[in-house]
Amino acid sequence: MIDLRPVGYIIGLLVGVLGVTMLVPFGVDFAYGNPDAGNFALSAMITVVAGSLMALATANASLNTLTIQQTFLLTTLSWLVLPIFGALPFWLGEPNATYTDAFFEAMSGLTTTGSTVFTQLHTLPEGTLLWRGLMQWFGGVGIIVVAMAFLPTLKVGGMQIFRSEGFDTIGKVLPRAAEIATSISIVYLVLTITCIASYGAVGMDLFDATVHALTTVATGGFANYDDSFAGFSDATEYVATTFMILASLPFIRYVQMLNGSTKPLFKDSQVWAFLGFWAFLVISMAAYRYFNASGDTAGTFRQTLFNVTSILTGTGYASADYGVWGAFPVMLFFLMGLVGGCAGSTCCSIKIFRFQLLVAAIRSQIQKIHSPNGVFTPRYQGRRVGEDIMSSVTGFFVAFMLTLATLAVILGMLGLDAVTAITGAATALANVGPGLGHQIGPTGNFAGLPDAAKWVLSAAMLIGRLELMAVYVLFSFAFWRH
Amino acid sequence: MIDLRPVGYIIGLLVGVLGVTMLVPFGVDFAYGNPDAGNFALSAMITVVAGSLMALATANASLNTLTIQQTFLLTTLSWLVLPIFGALPFWLGEPNATYTDAFFEAMSGLTTTGSTVFTQLHTLPEGTLLWRGLMQWFGGVGIIVVAMAFLPTLKVGGMQIFRSEGFDTIGKVLPRAAEIATSISIVYLVLTITCIASYGAVGMDLFDATVHALTTVATGGFANYDDSFAGFSDATEYVATTFMILASLPFIRYVQMLNGSTKPLFKDSQVWAFLGFWAFLVISMAAYRYFNASGDTAGTFRQTLFNVTSILTGTGYASADYGVWGAFPVMLFFLMGLVGGCAGSTCCSIKIFRFQLLVAAIRSQIQKIHSPNGVFTPRYQGRRVGEDIMSSVTGFFVAFMLTLATLAVILGMLGLDAVTAITGAATALANVGPGLGHQIGPTGNFAGLPDAAKWVLSAAMLIGRLELMAVYVLFSFAFWRH
Repeated sequence: MIDLRPVGYIIGLLVGVLGVTMLVPFGVDFAYGNPDAGNFALSAMITVVAGSLMALATANASLNTLTIQQTFLLTTLSWLVLPIFGALPFWLGEPNATYTDAFFEAMSGLTTTGSTVFTQLHTLPEGTLLWRGLMQWFGGVGIIVVAMAFLPTLKVGGMQIFRSEGFDTIGKVLPRAAEIATSISIVYLVLTITCIASYGAVGMDLFDATVHALTTVATGGFANYDDSFAGFSDATEYVATTFMILASLPFIRYVQMLNGSTKPLFKDSQVWAFLGFWAFLVISMAAYRYFNASGDTAGTFRQTLFNVTSILTGTGYASADYGVWGAFPVMLFFLMGLVGGCAGSTCCSIKIFRFQLLVAAIRSQIQKIHSPNGVFTPRYQGRRVGEDIMSSVTGFFVAFMLTLATLAVILGMLGLDAVTAITGAATALANVGPGLGHQIGPTGNFAGLPDAAKWVLSAAMLIGRLELMAVYVLFSFAFWRH
Repeated sequence: MIDLRPVGYIIGLLVGVLGVTMLVPFGVDFAYGNPDAGNFALSAMITVVAGSLMALATANASLNTLTIQQTFLLTTLSWLVLPIFGALPFWLGEPNATYTDAFFEAMSGLTTTGSTVFTQLHTLPEGTLLWRGLMQWFGGVGIIVVAMAFLPTLKVGGMQIFRSEGFDTIGKVLPRAAEIATSISIVYLVLTITCIASYGAVGMDLFDATVHALTTVATGGFANYDDSFAGFSDATEYVATTFMILASLPFIRYVQMLNGSTKPLFKDSQVWAFLGFWAFLVISMAAYRYFNASGDTAGTFRQTLFNVTSILTGTGYASADYGVWGAFPVMLFFLMGLVGGCAGSTCCSIKIFRFQLLVAAIRSQIQKIHSPNGVFTPRYQGRRVGEDIMSSVTGFFVAFMLTLATLAVILGMLGLDAVTAITGAATALANVGPGLGHQIGPTGNFAGLPDAAKWVLSAAMLIGRLELMAVYVLFSFAFWRH
């Protein structure tokens, strides 16, 4: 029997903190004189009371020794319970959405996905827009902490390759998580403030600059306008591109830089693979568009740069309808969403280090085939990668693809057309944001989907954000039999 | 340095045999009084002369000891060189295609893919139609021999799991291949003759029955009519379904049955997994269509049964435009093409045993995650599966997906729309036949694609038919450095 009290206690605390955080949009709505402020106060009250009761009921828990089972439960339940409460302001207040829509939006927020079911965003009160941004911001920093503190120990999806990095020397899970959270939060905060200032410098007003900075450094993608970034100036796109890239690199490298050591950043093969792949995508797509179309070539490069960066990093902003850029760009947009950024950043999806390892696995397979008696160990950053990590990474990839296919089939069964079903499943599982096609494409919206599809996509976002295995393990019978 | 003489010698013989085989369509065209007969005679002469010269030039080769390198070269070069000559009758004679089209058709034939660039098939001379069928038939039996004799020894894509089956006790590669070819050919011939008789019994004329039987037992899919099976009777569809399923089971089981042992067939978990998955697909899709449409329910079931069987087995016949059956069926048709039948049959694609192993891999990953100190070995048919086989299978899956993505990008770059590019890449790599969308869908044709796309798809068919790794190994520098 697993002792659920420590899990309940920590989640109770997190829910309580979420409730307190709702006072920020309350204050903003109050300052702007929006009548919606009252709904934030109500939501905050409900959430704080619920969180407190949960924590009180489990206050006799021992937090010194979280077992593996408890850590898994804590991770998944956090991302399941927090959206339940995070949805309240959307349900009780503006835009007075159905609970399905409110939950979808909250899950899309906390998983930093960025798909939205809300329309006419510019008519929403400031508090509501800020709450969307805040959820992505907390989701972003939350996942870095989980990825650094929990996943390597839990051996999820090959993340154990990062065990020897940074914080591994500290013993117990929770103190380590606390230490990581502190260091990472400082970096995250500095990045956010710099981003706000940069957006302000290129002409955004303070409110837009703040909300978009929150969703930029989280590579989340919620915007304050239905047409996302299309209405902003050219300079804004360059600023956003810069910060999306900065947010896609491993945050531990920034912590190390703050400690005076820049070497680890420049020696990280993940970083170079990511930047190289990004440059390759931008240049080849810009070249394709340049030779296949005519007109404003400065705009061609800028738009390509911005939208490729947005989808590759899983942010999900759009500054143009890239759905009409032609067959080759559309295909690339679909596929690059399945790549993602670096591990230990706010990025989601399969991630660049896994592709490095997968290619290494294929290479060593080929070597084994032509020289059956040789011993070939794949390498990563010059070090040998054990069978354990390798099978963990390939297992993750297989699980990702089979999950994607299963989700697409379920969405198809619910009546979605093939393009919407496949790209919807992919964009949710990879936490990107927009799909393809007229409905959920860069200029579309998830509002028109059937309710059942919204719940399926919400589940997909959760599964994808927690690297699949961390969720699937809960469905193993043996997991509960302790 | 690799001694290329044994490879050249065997391929020379194979080319010679191919040339002699061209005398069959020559005879048929002659009997029907088609003037195209002369072109078959010419093609046969060129091919026999070329094959003989190749064999003579390398006649001093030692065939006793094929090295691994030579075996790999032999496998890939066979499927590359034979279509070069197999294309001659289409180029020199009817339909006087461009060499690109002729080669595409020949490659689609010998890899048992079944995609066609020829239109107005009913106007083609009998010899040409028969030649398409014969190439698929030889391609089908050829791949079984390769899959049974070569791939397990070469450790390609996890095929080594079948090493302990049937023929493994014999020592050298070539004598084993000869023995396997003999046993398998008998089974294959019996199956073909039974299929011809069955098609005849339900009303096909002898010529149609023969050609379609050749392409049915090869799970190839070339038909004599532009609308594939749509013009045949209901009973024909049931006959075709039966033989497509029979051709998707491991042929070694039939050999064992001929030797009096039926147990291995019924104890083969691959067979049950395949039949179970097939039944699940047919029943769920038929149910979906029944509840989402009205009308002829007998026709609904029959059409579903036939077309699902055709795509799942990678045959590629169509008796209806399933592209208009709705989102859910269309999605399933795309995905089921990536599954395929049993190893050791004429089927292609990822194959059912790999999915069994991939699921076992994910299960053991999940077990490892929640009990890090336990030892969990995936099992197949009750036996433990070593890390070696497992990494070979996952490596195959990863290579398949990355190849698919790369091919789709290349086809997109050549101007194909996203649906055509992705499903075209998939249908070629999985050797299925039709793709999706208006151009290459079940009622479409590959004729309208740009030439470059046809060459890319031809390469994809070759790579897919030889289980990827057998081709990729040739691109490894170390392969040549002996």
